[in-house]
This record gives sequence, structure tokens and C-alpha cells, in this order.
Amino acid sequence: MSITAVPGFSASGVACGIKASGAPDLSLVVTTDRSPVPAAGVFTTNLACAAPVQVTRQHLKSGRAAAVILNSGNANAATGAPGRAIAEEMCALTAEPLGLDPQDVLVCSTGLIGIPMTINPVVAGLPNLIAGLGSDLAAGEAAATAILTTDTVRKEAFVSGPGFSVGAMAKGAAMLAPAMATMLAVIVTDIAADSSLLHQALVHGVADSFNMLLVDGAMSTNDTVLLLANGVSGTPTNTGATKDAFIDAVAEVTQSLALAMASDAEGATKLATVVVSGARTQDDARRAARAVASSQLVQCSLYGSDPYWGRVLSELGASGAIFDPEKTVISYNGFTVCRDGVAAPHDSKSLAATMTARDILIECKLNAGDQQATMHFTDLTHAYIDENAATS
Amino acid sequence: MSITAVPGFSASGVACGIKASGAPDLSLVVTTDRSPVPAAGVFTTNLACAAPVQVTRQHLKSGRAAAVILNSGNANAATGAPGRAIAEEMCALTAEPLGLDPQDVLVCSTGLIGIPMTINPVVAGLPNLIAGLGSDLAAGEAAATAILTTDTVRKEAFVSGPGFSVGAMAKGAAMLAPAMATMLAVIVTDIAADSSLLHQALVHGVADSFNMLLVDGAMSTNDTVLLLANGVSGTPTNTGATKDAFIDAVAEVTQSLALAMASDAEGATKLATVVVSGARTQDDARRAARAVASSQLVQCSLYGSDPYWGRVLSELGASGAIFDPEKTVISYNGFTVCRDGVAAPHDSKSLAATMTARDILIECKLNAGDQQATMHFTDLTHAYIDENAATS
Repeated sequence: MSITAVPGFSASGVACGIKASGAPDLSLVVTTDRSPVPAAGVFTTNLACAAPVQVTRQHLKSGRAAAVILNSGNANAATGAPGRAIAEEMCALTAEPLGLDPQDVLVCSTGLIGIPMTINPVVAGLPNLIAGLGSDLAAGEAAATAILTTDTVRKEAFVSGPGFSVGAMAKGAAMLAPAMATMLAVIVTDIAADSSLLHQALVHGVADSFNMLLVDGAMSTNDTVLLLANGVSGTPTNTGATKDAFIDAVAEVTQSLALAMASDAEGATKLATVVVSGARTQDDARRAARAVASSQLVQCSLYGSDPYWGRVLSELGASGAIFDPEKTVISYNGFTVCRDGVAAPHDSKSLAATMTARDILIECKLNAGDQQATMHFTDLTHAYIDENAATS
Repeated sequence: MSITAVPGFSASGVACGIKASGAPDLSLVVTTDRSPVPAAGVFTTNLACAAPVQVTRQHLKSGRAAAVILNSGNANAATGAPGRAIAEEMCALTAEPLGLDPQDVLVCSTGLIGIPMTINPVVAGLPNLIAGLGSDLAAGEAAATAILTTDTVRKEAFVSGPGFSVGAMAKGAAMLAPAMATMLAVIVTDIAADSSLLHQALVHGVADSFNMLLVDGAMSTNDTVLLLANGVSGTPTNTGATKDAFIDAVAEVTQSLALAMASDAEGATKLATVVVSGARTQDDARRAARAVASSQLVQCSLYGSDPYWGRVLSELGASGAIFDPEKTVISYNGFTVCRDGVAAPHDSKSLAATMTARDILIECKLNAGDQQATMHFTDLTHAYIDENAATS
């Protein structure tokens, strides 16, 4: 299922020449009737955010949008006022043939940081892009393909709720890709919701998905997640049950995309999940899970298939979370390796056999409260370094 | 020069069998006349701190110490109450033959985390250790050798001040070493100072040295820096000039040791320095420098000898420091590659030639104030991963 499985949205994707390889690099999602609809976005909090992030944030102040134009191959980040002018021009050039106000067009870019962007390829590619607009599977797939960078697979998600549906496309072999910046997602729904509910659903979904996915701790200049609701289903969100179902559906879509990104993390041989439970507060739980997930030493241990819990306990202790290390229980793949903060006897041969698998589960029970957080991460590998050691 | 170059201190180092390799692993520093003297320490803030850290912190409450017993090969971390009993026993066993109160003995351990420690090797090695005590160069070198783990060279420092001297030994291929925990330093001086001045000098020195050295962001369970002052020189610190000279000497010693650790970082091919200047506050400057130094992406770029400033700007922007990215200037090895937040024309061929060197300087001018911070770090390499992928 592609993003166009949601009624009332059309999409397209083409190659316009931003990428030297000639791969698809220009993508468009638009309401099929060209009408502006309620929309919301969440963005990187990086001060050095990219030009398209600045422009999209500005355009979203109306709480409405009709189209999203996206390019890969250049992040249009660290490009100053000329970069902002290009981002605005991308919106204007897209709006004109579609009969839209440029303010109703949002823009996203992903690719190298600090390379001046030129408008020429976009000008050249737009006629084909708009001619290719469709609401069939192929059109949605073309749009999802054109936003990829070093991703090896398209990332799409679709969830049906009671009387509505939610579809999405995303890019992100994430912060893994050489010099790429970084994660983009466009989510659309045919439910009838206002932009404040969309924002609420987005913040909720992102907190438990993209924000709990950590590959190398980089907070990109370009991270953007957008949500547009065209109301075509006629299903309102003014009943509690539908509202909750919608919020859950957005969360399901974002989690599905986040896992797809982690699975596609280039260079990674493991997809690890750390669950911290028994934390005093939700903030403590997230802080502790993030500390473990972002630890280069833990990541290296996983690459070596080594259940070295001492590093996990050390990272928990350094995280800032408040707990008693001597009440902490740590397990790898269900084998308890540390109890009350010290080594626990376990069947190390059986555990070793499970450590060679791709999926690794690390559970940390702090016994300091009842809060929990889960984080997904990858191992640190030779291939990761090769990907990132040079941009050319 | 070894730690024994400071008058009134003796040292010794032997192999006692904690390390399976049979390499030296037990070390002792003691006042030559066995008298307790003013002492101070700074420690890891890791909640899961090791047993010897807990015991030494307790013993230092008196502000005095006469001896430091250290072992390598086992961190005695994540070992619970039995670990604390072992650490106390190490102090008591050392105190007895020296005629000291066990409370006047401090203890440090470094090695694997989470491996139960036994006292037997320490019992077996202590007679030789004490018999070997001397105040000559060889005795100091033996002490400095016995605390090493995967370090490839001894780390010692010595500074002469007006009427006093400061000597030190340290271990730390730091957080790089496979499963090692982590950085230890013992500093001694013959100046006459009370423990509060020692603490002040230590905090000042550590802030600009060990705390500005980042290899993989790990805050170990065992990090400890101790400072003992025996007053043998008779030089008092009650004059401003001598006090300042002493504080400067401690800072010089700690900086020298920190650079020695960075230089010995196993797996590293680069020793990078990032200088953030023009920050609004000192905290902003340190936060920004730390963000750049701890970035896996920046570290990978350096391994590839790639002056990819876009990642540096992105990390600065994500650091939490307040500044205007579009006023930021970034240079590599003196070549300005980014001015006002965008790419700056430069001689990329000449810059590329300098990037293959081991020492790399990255300067970031935020133009938001007058505060500055410097951080040293290393690149992320295949060899780093190999070192850390398995503990055995």
C-alpha cells in the first residue's frame, strides 16, 4: 500500500537531475481536488535547521496545506538566505500549475548539507512531476521512491481505522547515510480533523517512534514529519472513540516507519531494542533507555554478539536517571545476566547462541518506580564507518 | 620523570596475578615517612560507581591520606556489597604492614566491570609490593606500569613550580579499551596545602583536561583523580602567587596526562581538537564543543580525512547552545570552510593535504559572546570497533 491508498490524495515522483546518478529525486503529494486541508508538522529542534524547515514551519502557521514538494540529493541546509529563497521558489513553482497559493505548499529536502542548491533541476522536472500525478499504487510508490537517499528500500505504511485510513511515506536510512540529512515523513489521512488534533496525534506518535529510534544520536538539520487530513471520509473526530482510534493509527504508522528505518540502517548487523522499566519517572525511563542506545561501547558489544551487561549498567548509572544500581536487573534476550547490580548465574552457552541473531532485546529493570520506555538502535560496525568516513 | 620525583613520596608496582597475562597489576603510592597528609579526590558521577570509588570517597572525608593502593585487571565494579568488602580489605591489608590506619589508605581499581573480585592475588602480592617501595625513578615507573590496562605507554607527568613540584601517574587508553573502566590518576605534590585548596586545584584542572577529553562519551564506573600534598618542600600556599602557581601546575599536569591518554587512544588515527569561541556563556561553549567532539558522524568524517563542516554546524545547532547559525564561522586546520553559516570558498586541495595529518584543528566561531572551550577527541575507526566488539 502506498500513500495514495488514502482517498483524496495524489502523488508523483520523477528524476530531475539533482542527484548526479540520475535516480528519482523530486516528489509531490497533493490533495486530489487541490483544496487546502488541515495540516500539522513536527520538526528538528536543531538551531541550524535547513531552509525548507524554516519555510514549511512558516507556511504551516495557517494550519492548512494542499501540497508537499520534496527533493532528495541536496538538503538545502547551511545555505543561508539564498537557500530560503530557493525553498520559497520551490513552493511557488509547485503552486502555480496546481492553482494553489504558495503558502499552501510545504517543502522538504534531504541530502548533503552545505552545498548551495540551484532551482534549475526543479524547474526542469516539475512539468513531468505534475503530469505524473495519480492516485494509484504506482504513483504513490514513485513519490516514496523519489525521496530516498542511501535507503535500500521504500518506506511506506498504511493503517485502516473505523471509517478512516492513514497512509505515509518516509525516508531515512536515517543518520546512517553518508552525509545525509536525514529523516522525512509525510502522513496523510481522510479523517476530518482540525490542525490542533493533527498536531496532538503527531507529537504523540513521534514521541514513541522516531524519537525512540537512535542510530547515531545525530539530530539532523532537516528532520520533518508532516500530517495532512483531507476529511474525504466524512468521519469526524469529535467522538472520543474515533479520536482515540485516530491517534492510535498515527502512532502505529509512525512506529512502523521508524522500525523500517532501523531495519534499513546501512552498515548495521543488529536491530536492538532496549526496554527500561521500573523507572521513577517517564523522563528517567527515556533518559536511561537513550543512554544505553546511544552508547558506542554497547553498540560495539552488540556487533561482537557480546552480552556485556557491565557497559549497560554503567550507561544507566551515567544517564542521570535516579535509581539504585544494586536493585537493578538486566537481561539479554530473556536471560538474566545481572541481578541486584551484580553478575547473575545464567546459561551463557544458550545465551551466546541467541546473541548471533539480528534482533536483540535488552531489558533493564530499575525497581525505582513504574515508568517504562523503549528504544530501538543498531550496532556500530565497520560498514557504518565506511559509509560515513567520506562523503564522496 | 616519575611520580617519585616529588620529594617525600615512595612507590612500587608488581604483578600479583589479577591479570591472567601475568603483567604488572598491583601498584602503591605512599608518603615516604608514612604520615597521613592533606588529600582530595574527584570521581565519576556515575550512579553505578565502583566499590573502590565508594570506599575512597568515604576515606577521603577526613581530608587526609597516606597511601593509595591500585589494581588493574578487574574494575571491582558492579560487584555489590562483596565488592565493597574487598575494597575495604585492600585498604586494611595495605595499612597493616605500613603501620597506617586503614582509613588513611585510598583504593582504585580498573579492568573489567561485573566480574567478582577476589582478595587472594592482592594478599599474595602485597609483601613484594611493599618490599619494592622506593623513591627512585624505577619505583615510580613500576607503579605507573602496574595500573595500565590496554594502554600502550606509561602516562606520567611532572611540573616544577617556585619551591614545589607536582608529579603524577595515570592510566587511560580510556574508554577505548575493550571493556575497561577507565581513567585513574594519582597526583602528588610536596607543597604545603590543605585539602580544600587541593580540591579546588583538582576541580579546576580536571575541568579543562580530563573533562574536555572525549573518546566515546562513556562516563566510567571507576574514574578517579586523587591529589596528595605532603608539605615536604615547606613551601606554603598562603601567598597568592604560590597558590596560583600551584593551581596552574596541577592544571598543566592534568592537561599533559589527558593529552597522553588521547594520544594513546587505541584504534584512533586522528587526535582532533575542537575550539568553540564566541559563545554566549561558558556552559554554551562547553556544550557546543562536546557536541562536536561526541558526534559519531564528525568522528567518521575525520577517519576519512574529510573536512565535512556541515556535520559540525549541525552538531553545534543541536547542542543546545544559543547562537545564530548564520553568523557562524568554521575552519579546519586554519582554512575557513564555512562563513556566516554557508560554504566559504577555500583552497580545497591545500586543505585536503593537511587533513591526512594526525592532528586536526576544528575552530568554530559562534559570534554570540566571548566565551571559549576546547575539547580533544579521536576519530571513529575500524580498529576502535575491533577493540570493543568483544571483551574476550
